[in-house]
Amino acid sequence: MAQRIAVIPGDGIGPEVVEATRTALDAVADVHGLDLAYDDFDWSCRRYVEQGAMMPEDGLDILREYDAILLGAVGWPGVPDHVSLWGLLIPIRRTFRQYVNLRPVAVLEGVQSPLRDARPGDVDLVVVRENVEGEYSEIGGRMNRGFPDEMAVQESVFTRAGVTRVVDFAFDLARTRGGYLTSATKSNGIVHTLPFWDEVVAERAAEFPDVRWDAEHIDALAAKLVLEPGRFDVIVGSNLFGDILSDLAAAVAGSIGVAPSANLDPTRTFPSMFEPVHGSAPDIAGQGTADPVGTLWSASMMLDHLGHQEAGADLLAAVRATIRSPATRTRDLGGTAGTREVVEAVAARIRA
Amino acid sequence: MAQRIAVIPGDGIGPEVVEATRTALDAVADVHGLDLAYDDFDWSCRRYVEQGAMMPEDGLDILREYDAILLGAVGWPGVPDHVSLWGLLIPIRRTFRQYVNLRPVAVLEGVQSPLRDARPGDVDLVVVRENVEGEYSEIGGRMNRGFPDEMAVQESVFTRAGVTRVVDFAFDLARTRGGYLTSATKSNGIVHTLPFWDEVVAERAAEFPDVRWDAEHIDALAAKLVLEPGRFDVIVGSNLFGDILSDLAAAVAGSIGVAPSANLDPTRTFPSMFEPVHGSAPDIAGQGTADPVGTLWSASMMLDHLGHQEAGADLLAAVRATIRSPATRTRDLGGTAGTREVVEAVAARIRA
Ligand SMILES: CC(C)[C@H](C(=O)O)[C@@H](O)C(=O)O
Ligand SMILES: CC(C)[C@H](C(=O)O)[C@@H](O)C(=O)O
Repeated sequence: MAQRIAVIPGDGIGPEVVEATRTALDAVADVHGLDLAYDDFDWSCRRYVEQGAMMPEDGLDILREYDAILLGAVGWPGVPDHVSLWGLLIPIRRTFRQYVNLRPVAVLEGVQSPLRDARPGDVDLVVVRENVEGEYSEIGGRMNRGFPDEMAVQESVFTRAGVTRVVDFAFDLARTRGGYLTSATKSNGIVHTLPFWDEVVAERAAEFPDVRWDAEHIDALAAKLVLEPGRFDVIVGSNLFGDILSDLAAAVAGSIGVAPSANLDPTRTFPSMFEPVHGSAPDIAGQGTADPVGTLWSASMMLDHLGHQEAGADLLAAVRATIRSPATRTRDLGGTAGTREVVEAVAARIRA
Repeated sequence: MAQRIAVIPGDGIGPEVVEATRTALDAVADVHGLDLAYDDFDWSCRRYVEQGAMMPEDGLDILREYDAILLGAVGWPGVPDHVSLWGLLIPIRRTFRQYVNLRPVAVLEGVQSPLRDARPGDVDLVVVRENVEGEYSEIGGRMNRGFPDEMAVQESVFTRAGVTRVVDFAFDLARTRGGYLTSATKSNGIVHTLPFWDEVVAERAAEFPDVRWDAEHIDALAAKLVLEPGRFDVIVGSNLFGDILSDLAAAVAGSIGVAPSANLDPTRTFPSMFEPVHGSAPDIAGQGTADPVGTLWSASMMLDHLGHQEAGADLLAAVRATIRSPATRTRDLGGTAGTREVVEAVAARIRA
C-alpha cells in the first residue's frame, strides 16, 4: 500500500523548491521501488488573501490521515505572522505533537563557510529543538493598553514530560553519532524554567552513561558555535534556544538555503512534517533561482522517517555530490545553476 | 572634589584585570588631571565561602554613595549561580536601575576575527541590551515537584516604560553613530511580549525620523551577524536577546576577551557599573596571562560616563594601538605578552 504524503508548497519560492524536490523523489522511488502517493494542498498566504484562511477549517483533520507532510514555505508581505504561521505551521506542529524539531547542520563540499578555518566535514552537528512548549506559549497578555503603565506578560511553560521526551530523543541520537550532547541553558539568568530544564537533563543523563554531555549557557554557546563549531555533535535546546542555535549553526555552515528540518512525532501517532529552514523569500520568488537543497535534504529526512533509510541516504548523497560542482549549484552557493538544473542533475545521479 | 569609584575585583582573573586597569587609569588621571578616588571591596565567591555572603547586608547602601562601580568578574566552581550572580551582579543592576547594558563590538587591529572576510574596521556595532526586566524576571515557580506532572513556569514582563527608555537610548545612540538601528524581536513565535516590544519600537521610531531602523527576528539576526556583520550599527534587544547577541557579536569580532560592557543608569540617579563581558575564567586565574583589554575598554566607558570623554578616548586609543603588536597583546589574541606587559605598554603610551 502506498505511503501517503501531503504536500503543501505554500508561498514564494515554496512551490519551486517543492516541485523540484518531487522530481528527485520520483527518481528515488523508481530506483528503490518505493510506493509514494502525493496530494497537493494550496494552503498558503495566497489562499488566505483569496478565501480568508490559510487552510480549510478541517485542514488538520485532512492532514491527520497522511503518513508525512512536505512543506515548502509560508509567508508573504502584508500577511501578518499571526495569520501565516499561527494559521498553519504552528498548529500543525502542535496538533500533531511534533515535539522534536531536528536540524542537521554540516559544512558541505561546495558550500563556503563564512568562517576562516571551517573546511567541509569540520562542522557536522544536529540541533534537537523542543518544538511544542517552552517560550512559545500562548499564555499571557497585555494590560493597560495604550496607557503609560501598559505591560505585556508571557509565560514560558516547561513540563517534565515535555523536557524529558525531547532530551531522551537527543541522548538517543547522540549515541548513534559522536556520543556527545550539549544542553543549551540560561539557568543563571532565567531562574525558574531553565534550572528545571537542567535538572531533567542531568537526571536523564544517568540513563545514557555512554553519552558524554555538558550544559552551556546560550550566550556562551552562541559564541562557541562561531569560535569552535567543530566541537559540537548534538545540541538540545528549548523551543526558542533551538530556534536561534539552528539558524546560527546553519549560517556558520555557510547557507540557510541548504538547511533542512524535520518536525517529528517520534511516537508516530501523527504525521511528521518536513520543511526547509529558509522562508518563502518573496524577493526571488518565481525566478527559478531558488536553492532546492534545503527541501531535498528535508525530503531525505522524510524518507528516513518513513522507513526508507537507504533511499534517504541515496538522495542526500546525490545532493551532496551534485553541489560539488558550481555548474550544478545555485547562486547562493556561488554556483551558476537554476533550481531545475540542480534537481535534474540530482535525479540523473540517482538514476545512474 | 574627587569622583569616587567602588572597585569590586571579584573572582578568578577579576583581580588581575582590575589591578592592571588601575595602572592604566592612574596614567590617564595624571595626564588629564582627573581626581579619581578608589575604594576596593573584596566581595566575591571567596568571601561567600569564608563569610556566607557575596557582600555585606548593607552592600548596596555602601555602593549607592559612589559615582561608578568597576567590576572584574564573579563566579567560582562550586558556588552556585544563584549565589554569585543573584547575590551581587544582578542586584546591583536592578537596585541601581541600570536599565541599559551597553556592549560595543569592533574588529580591532591585532584581533583576528574567525570570519574569513572580516578585516579590522569592518565590524563596528553596539548592542543596547535591556538590563532590568524582560525574560530575567523573578516571577514564576514550580509545581508537582518530583512527580511526572511536574512543571516550571516563568513570566517574561515587558513594560511600556521599560521598553521605551531603552529603545529611546538606542535611537539616540544610533543618531550619534551610523544612523541605523536594528531591533531584535521574535514576535512571530512569542506572541504576547514581543509584538508589544515591536509596537513600542515603531512608535518611538516616529520621534527619530533621522534614524533608519528595522526589526529582525532573533534567529535570522543571529545568522546575519555571522553572514554580514558589517551591516549593523546599533542593535537593541531585550534582556535575553541582548545577552545572546552581544556575546555572539563579540565572538564574530574575534574575542570575548576584549569585549567591554557598561551597565548604565542614564538618569544618573544611581551609580553605573562597568565590567568586561568575559567571566572569572578559573582555569587561567593567577597566571598573569589574562587579557586586560575588556576591562580597560570598560574603564574607558566609565571615564566617558563620568564626563571625561577625552580621557576615555585616550585610554581606548592607547589600548587599540598597544594590541596592534603581538609583543604587547595576550595569548588569546595570538600575542606573547602577559597581563602586566600589556598594561604597562598602555600606560607608557598614555604618558608619552
Ligand atoms: C552571568 C549572567 C547572569 C549574565 C547575564 O546574562 O546577564 C552574563 O551573561 C552577562 O551577560 O552579564
Ligand atoms: C516562523 C517561526 C515561527 C518559526 C519558529 O521560530 O518556529 C521559524 O523561525 C522556524 O524556525 O521554523
